[in-house]
Amino acid sequence: MSDYLTYQSSGVNIEANDEMVEKIKGSVGSTFGPRVMDLHGGFAGLFSLENSNNFSKNYKNPVLVSCTDGVGTKVMLARDMCKFDTVGQDLVAMSVNDMIVLGAAPLFFLDYLAADELNPEKVAVLVEGIAAACREAGCSLIGGETAEMPGIYSKNDFDMAGFAVGVVEKDEIIKGDSAEPGDVIIGLSSSGVHSNGYSLVRNICFNKAKLSLDSPVDSLGGRKLGEVLLEPTKLYVQPVLAVLEELKAASEIKAMAHITGGGLVGNIPRVLPEGTKAVIKRKSWEKPDIFPFLQKTGPVEESEMYRVFNMGVGFVMVVSPEKADKAVEILTKNGQQAWQIGEICKGSKEVVIQ
Amino acid sequence: MSDYLTYQSSGVNIEANDEMVEKIKGSVGSTFGPRVMDLHGGFAGLFSLENSNNFSKNYKNPVLVSCTDGVGTKVMLARDMCKFDTVGQDLVAMSVNDMIVLGAAPLFFLDYLAADELNPEKVAVLVEGIAAACREAGCSLIGGETAEMPGIYSKNDFDMAGFAVGVVEKDEIIKGDSAEPGDVIIGLSSSGVHSNGYSLVRNICFNKAKLSLDSPVDSLGGRKLGEVLLEPTKLYVQPVLAVLEELKAASEIKAMAHITGGGLVGNIPRVLPEGTKAVIKRKSWEKPDIFPFLQKTGPVEESEMYRVFNMGVGFVMVVSPEKADKAVEILTKNGQQAWQIGEICKGSKEVVIQ
Repeated sequence: MSDYLTYQSSGVNIEANDEMVEKIKGSVGSTFGPRVMDLHGGFAGLFSLENSNNFSKNYKNPVLVSCTDGVGTKVMLARDMCKFDTVGQDLVAMSVNDMIVLGAAPLFFLDYLAADELNPEKVAVLVEGIAAACREAGCSLIGGETAEMPGIYSKNDFDMAGFAVGVVEKDEIIKGDSAEPGDVIIGLSSSGVHSNGYSLVRNICFNKAKLSLDSPVDSLGGRKLGEVLLEPTKLYVQPVLAVLEELKAASEIKAMAHITGGGLVGNIPRVLPEGTKAVIKRKSWEKPDIFPFLQKTGPVEESEMYRVFNMGVGFVMVVSPEKADKAVEILTKNGQQAWQIGEICKGSKEVVIQ
Repeated sequence: MSDYLTYQSSGVNIEANDEMVEKIKGSVGSTFGPRVMDLHGGFAGLFSLENSNNFSKNYKNPVLVSCTDGVGTKVMLARDMCKFDTVGQDLVAMSVNDMIVLGAAPLFFLDYLAADELNPEKVAVLVEGIAAACREAGCSLIGGETAEMPGIYSKNDFDMAGFAVGVVEKDEIIKGDSAEPGDVIIGLSSSGVHSNGYSLVRNICFNKAKLSLDSPVDSLGGRKLGEVLLEPTKLYVQPVLAVLEELKAASEIKAMAHITGGGLVGNIPRVLPEGTKAVIKRKSWEKPDIFPFLQKTGPVEESEMYRVFNMGVGFVMVVSPEKADKAVEILTKNGQQAWQIGEICKGSKEVVIQ
């Protein structure tokens, strides 16, 4: 046996990397729109902003909008359930849902996956999840990085980060400075916990109540707890852009917010102008079973629930009263359940849950 | 004591997050160029591509170029040395050095930091390192995410991912399809190992030779091993863009490559056209002491060294023979040591080290 040290014998599997690249090629390519430029070498992804007849939409004064996010400790649930096909949607949703708040349309996405060991099968499933979400959000997966870091991640652990770039016409940016008393708050249904608050979820379900991911829960309609908790974050891009398209952005849509960590209470004030507050009627929408389940199992105080979780409303649009019905109608037509959940009143940038 | 569970008692420190945001504000703001639009709400970073007299450069047919990367297990060295001010430059360099390969200029950068626990002091030092590198690379740090994930990362462990977007005029993209026999290969000096091959480095120095990070090493000029290994990755943006500017991109600069994992042998072929090969003269440049040190300590075979490490050349430009002297002169004038290290010959996309 040779005394020489090599990269391979130091734990870096170059063949696994080649196999992985081969496996994800189809998923990645399936997301490419006409603006993606394919160049050999692969040092970077290229996306053309050229004004040309080849593209359905051109921009006069393009402003790029960029977001980054991970999915927090939801990756631990995926790991524990050995189910990797849904967290890719969480990753894409966390960034693109942030971006559309400004009225921007997603253009492209890049992902960073890090794990103790590169398992080409697992990476392929994760990346196909990301690619499927990119297709739904209308953006191209033009780059990514996979890092094998056994010293940082424990066996089977992994983490992922996503980066999205979108574009908005400069004079159509939704600045969140125009909401006024009387405007209607429309809530878009979430699919469950989405990708925030999982440290509290884990504390409730596993540290304290010692529940199993695999046990069916009566109050969750007999579904397995793990399955309900892994439900992927909704992608709001398509229905929200449909509303913007039809209601001409800046004038009728006053503000939007993606309801992430901090809940309705923490996120709506980010887009309220001085002198206004949001009054939310808690009985105006259907809460998914998982929220009363978590609240009772904890127990968790009601006010804390609203500070941590989306409580069934994953995205909010503030709309002039004249257009509120129309906005809900467009959302519903586009497959997105939505309710009028409150209104803007005079106040000091707070959220009141009634 | 209350029986109610809270987010804070589940391990998420909201105050630390607020303190962190306050601490990094100055660093982040210091990177903003005139195209960055500051909007309250903070759901996303905004960067204007508008054509206007306000900007030093406008683009006719802009192509966006995007890269993502981490710094691999170099983060473990930073952790072990409790030194967090330099890995930010590694993070920025890994992405922007990839981007300039295509002739693109960096526009903006976003970072993702994940750790077991959010330490505002440590994050502030990391982010100032990232911001300083962004200033040097001429890009704006318009967004970022910090994730506290105690279940994924062990005590004091962390990981980071970076994401860069740049722009290049469509007809000035360096496609790497025009190198021809006779073209000169110019090597730009590296600062050491940069951010690739650290699994092999750790295997050599710590698993096998049981060296200490703190011990001064004679063959490294008496410097501490840890200090030499943490030397940040060079940023090649400024000198490389200076050469492009003066030699009019596409015509005289035939190809470029960022020398990362795979070394000269793995990276140069990525930008060689069919029918050519690169012949490199190994004695044509000065190798930093760390490479003979690692090779001897391993021991590692010479060919493996060239397949894993940059061996002192962190970036390569392929230039027409008429412009080679001029290119080296411009690089030198811009503070970047460079040598003519080989030439393009007829062959089948391989690299021959002589």
